[in-house]
Amino acid sequence: MSAAWGRDQLGEDEAAALACLAARVRELAEAALLTGIGAAEAATVADEVRSLTARLETERRDDPPFAAPSADRVDRQLGSPVSGHLNPLAPPVDLEVTADGIVRGEFTLGPLYEGPPSYAHGGVSAMVLDQALGMAALATGTPGMTANLELRYRRPTPLAVPLLVEAKASHVEGRKVFASGTIAAPDGRVTVEATAMFVMPQRFVTSRYRPAENGPGTPP
Amino acid sequence: MSAAWGRDQLGEDEAAALACLAARVRELAEAALLTGIGAAEAATVADEVRSLTARLETERRDDPPFAAPSADRVDRQLGSPVSGHLNPLAPPVDLEVTADGIVRGEFTLGPLYEGPPSYAHGGVSAMVLDQALGMAALATGTPGMTANLELRYRRPTPLAVPLLVEAKASHVEGRKVFASGTIAAPDGRVTVEATAMFVMPQRFVTSRYRPAENGPGTPP
Repeated sequence: MSAAWGRDQLGEDEAAALACLAARVRELAEAALLTGIGAAEAATVADEVRSLTARLETERRDDPPFAAPSADRVDRQLGSPVSGHLNPLAPPVDLEVTADGIVRGEFTLGPLYEGPPSYAHGGVSAMVLDQALGMAALATGTPGMTANLELRYRRPTPLAVPLLVEAKASHVEGRKVFASGTIAAPDGRVTVEATAMFVMPQRFVTSRYRPAENGPGTPP
Repeated sequence: MSAAWGRDQLGEDEAAALACLAARVRELAEAALLTGIGAAEAATVADEVRSLTARLETERRDDPPFAAPSADRVDRQLGSPVSGHLNPLAPPVDLEVTADGIVRGEFTLGPLYEGPPSYAHGGVSAMVLDQALGMAALATGTPGMTANLELRYRRPTPLAVPLLVEAKASHVEGRKVFASGTIAAPDGRVTVEATAMFVMPQRFVTSRYRPAENGPGTPP
């Protein structure tokens, strides 16, 4: 993602302060899910949460901000629900791209991401893999939107342990990029496999691979 | 899901109070993502969020609670990241099952769920569809874990408008259930199509379709 899409672009200090805020809200979300305090105390805390929301909304952006361009940052989307440090919903998964185009990230899923009791929600694994495979596609220089995504669940993905997601693009055909990846448990066994095809919107091509400012265009 | 998995089971009043708390935290999460307050004020609010977390944690459950059994509730998993009203990460998507087994839900995705600028993250659509198709499988009487999930993205899924998810099981083969579904935009056009196979863990079969108390077992 190389354009700003008209978004506010944050420097490192402001991004770090807002990432701290998001981390605290993430902890609050987990505490809210697990709390056993009574209904009356829950209502009192809810009122105080509402007051904090009002304080944050005294200055409200129209859209999530991006990171200012920098050489060492591939993913500038600070609000991503998977990897965005400014998004309290994101685990967040830190994805790195190696020199040979392999995307890799270690992450842990807590109770907020539970599907079958004591395991990760299948859709959460899908979300993490979509993001990792999409970044592998981006690393080829052909950014695209997901056209299809196939997931094979080999075994349950455990919560509360370090998981590893890895992805790599296999080949590019015109505006299409094919990628595959896995999530693995700490014992190295793969829990979920994914393959995907990403398609670069026509608009990106006509503007010489530079995304337009006002939107991602529409896939064919 | 018919067993309690050893979870706390909440009555309607307690669940409603905690759902209100989760709704306030959900609003806070969006406000945190979009806030333009300065770094100093963000740090102050972050400290206050931490205090509220500590208050909630004075009574902390080991795992997310379930709803107490009731005739009109299919989905008792109050902590689901898709449909759980006690989970601040969930949109939440309210899924209903019709008498003929069709699962249906209307929902709206805000900026917390953004993938490509101004559109829903492909993984978020995957998560919603996994949940809806899984509930369609459950409605056949054969609860299962996702074995595979295939998603075809037909066009971008817009944010901030009412979306409709629908799913239905097509057939059951032993412990396998096949289901399909879609997400549609307000104009009725399908944005994402999904098909999936769910497999009932062997343990469910040997206990006459009643899930064991301590876990979902492992899929074959």
